[in-house]
Amino acid sequence: MKKLINNPEDFVRETVEGIIAAHPESLKLVDNNFRCVVRSDEKKENKVAIATAGGSGHLPTFLGYVGYGLADGVTVGNVFASPSAEAMYEVDKAIDNGAGILHLYGNYGGDKMNFGMTEDLISMDSIEVEEVLVTDDVASAPKGEEDRRRGVAGLFFAYKIAGAAAEKMYSLKDVKAVTQRAVDNIRTMGVALTPCIVPEAGKATFSIADNEMELGMGIHGEPGIMRCELKNVDEVVQYIMDRIIKDMPYVNGDEISILVNGLGSTPKEELYIAYRKASAILKDQGIKIYRNYIGEYATSLEMAGMSISLLKLDDELKGLLDQPAYSPFFQQYK
Amino acid sequence: MKKLINNPEDFVRETVEGIIAAHPESLKLVDNNFRCVVRSDEKKENKVAIATAGGSGHLPTFLGYVGYGLADGVTVGNVFASPSAEAMYEVDKAIDNGAGILHLYGNYGGDKMNFGMTEDLISMDSIEVEEVLVTDDVASAPKGEEDRRRGVAGLFFAYKIAGAAAEKMYSLKDVKAVTQRAVDNIRTMGVALTPCIVPEAGKATFSIADNEMELGMGIHGEPGIMRCELKNVDEVVQYIMDRIIKDMPYVNGDEISILVNGLGSTPKEELYIAYRKASAILKDQGIKIYRNYIGEYATSLEMAGMSISLLKLDDELKGLLDQPAYSPFFQQYK
Repeated sequence: MKKLINNPEDFVRETVEGIIAAHPESLKLVDNNFRCVVRSDEKKENKVAIATAGGSGHLPTFLGYVGYGLADGVTVGNVFASPSAEAMYEVDKAIDNGAGILHLYGNYGGDKMNFGMTEDLISMDSIEVEEVLVTDDVASAPKGEEDRRRGVAGLFFAYKIAGAAAEKMYSLKDVKAVTQRAVDNIRTMGVALTPCIVPEAGKATFSIADNEMELGMGIHGEPGIMRCELKNVDEVVQYIMDRIIKDMPYVNGDEISILVNGLGSTPKEELYIAYRKASAILKDQGIKIYRNYIGEYATSLEMAGMSISLLKLDDELKGLLDQPAYSPFFQQYK
Repeated sequence: MKKLINNPEDFVRETVEGIIAAHPESLKLVDNNFRCVVRSDEKKENKVAIATAGGSGHLPTFLGYVGYGLADGVTVGNVFASPSAEAMYEVDKAIDNGAGILHLYGNYGGDKMNFGMTEDLISMDSIEVEEVLVTDDVASAPKGEEDRRRGVAGLFFAYKIAGAAAEKMYSLKDVKAVTQRAVDNIRTMGVALTPCIVPEAGKATFSIADNEMELGMGIHGEPGIMRCELKNVDEVVQYIMDRIIKDMPYVNGDEISILVNGLGSTPKEELYIAYRKASAILKDQGIKIYRNYIGEYATSLEMAGMSISLLKLDDELKGLLDQPAYSPFFQQYK
């Protein structure tokens, strides 16, 4: 376990303390509880509030997407583990602006159960709550069973769209509708080259041979769809793009946003080599890249690998994607 | 060699092609040569131009700091190797705005030699050239021998200051003077936990035991000042901060900017745990953090580890640090 940490049990608390110490102008705790992080800028009356939650170890996901034009608050779990409903409830109460709350999170059992309990709690306070689950990982369930698919790097697009709609003062019903439409149009697939080590566990999340990769692996090391010999990145990207494009499907003339996401230790250089191939494939198919994002957006600690996400756009989604958004971990001013 | 690449010999070209494909609004090649990357926005007459250069494998360094309020052009070498004087000369000619050029780069033998030859070439074109070498790595030579120190993550601060001064239409003499003053006030020290693998070489840059770390190691795997058992990050940060603070030295009331930089595979979570300790140490010593930067600013491919840099500020440096700057790899709008 070669990590720059102190006591593994303090990993999450110390991470959040470091983030709050670094960015007090952007983020603050609720009641001094490091599980509950919310925006520290001025609240906007009657703006729909966006709440998210999830396990730690994925920065910038989830905490990094609390900011202007993104989410309003996050509940922070242990590494790869859902936080409690009690803490989610505290975040909800802190971020409510009187226009209702959208629970926006990845489709995982623990988060689903805890957000379900939170909905029961918060509805007793007469605060309206809706939810959208992100289900972008095409490798995690076949087409037609999208409600079984996991949420992975496409979460970023969901925060971007929901947050922009909320800042534009959409109603809760409309924020939910446009966010759900975005989710329905996001497809992601990843490839893992190495496991990562959960600090408290101290051992690798899975084992993989030195000459192997696993296509479709989840961001917690969930099994993928194929383990095979490590191939050239152009072949890997071709495989992933074929799966994503077929799953949607796309037609000539479609416009998309693409996210090439590093899982942790894969250098930016390699992400750009992957982008080079992905953009050539899209061009060949007559699919236009409207906006690209390349970097680390949803990681698995120090896992090596990457994922590619596409968001199919329409005019409304383009407008929302173009809205400014900023947090300590993400800036888009134009 | 577990990397998402194609032929290792194509690594640098394909990386640059991916970057240009992704960011044509910001970056372009000179004469279709992937070694020569310059800003693609409109040139500003009589603005001092900032040229840099260095080996690949360090993104966002060096190419990532070509942008508004940063450098105007970069010459791209092979991984960890200096590019040629001929290519540097092409970049110089492309970025010249009629007010002279500052060569701003890290203090390495190859870059020094090649920039020296470039100065001879460009001066024959009657273009005025000055240079500032970044020498921030306190571990690479003792105090009093600063001109032997290597340039590492503190390069970021040098680009930020020089680029802001140039945008504010400082003269070449004044851009050089304020950039040199910034460099004289930057101190960096790093720690490496793992080596990285240069694609063309296919083997690790050095070997280190599973329970060891190396303090003061350079960003190309140059030997550090102490190899020892891996310690808690709080102890590592204490050691680094003690060295940096003593080297400057700082006094109660000083204001600084701090950069906690990940070398490649160290998760953002760990960088924030390091920031937590570093900020506490500075507070204890009465040194005020004026602005912080936390993330990957100068990497060594997939090396695990981090560095801490401090820039001691005065009013002019604060003003320049606060100026907007943006590139595809770095955004600071406020």
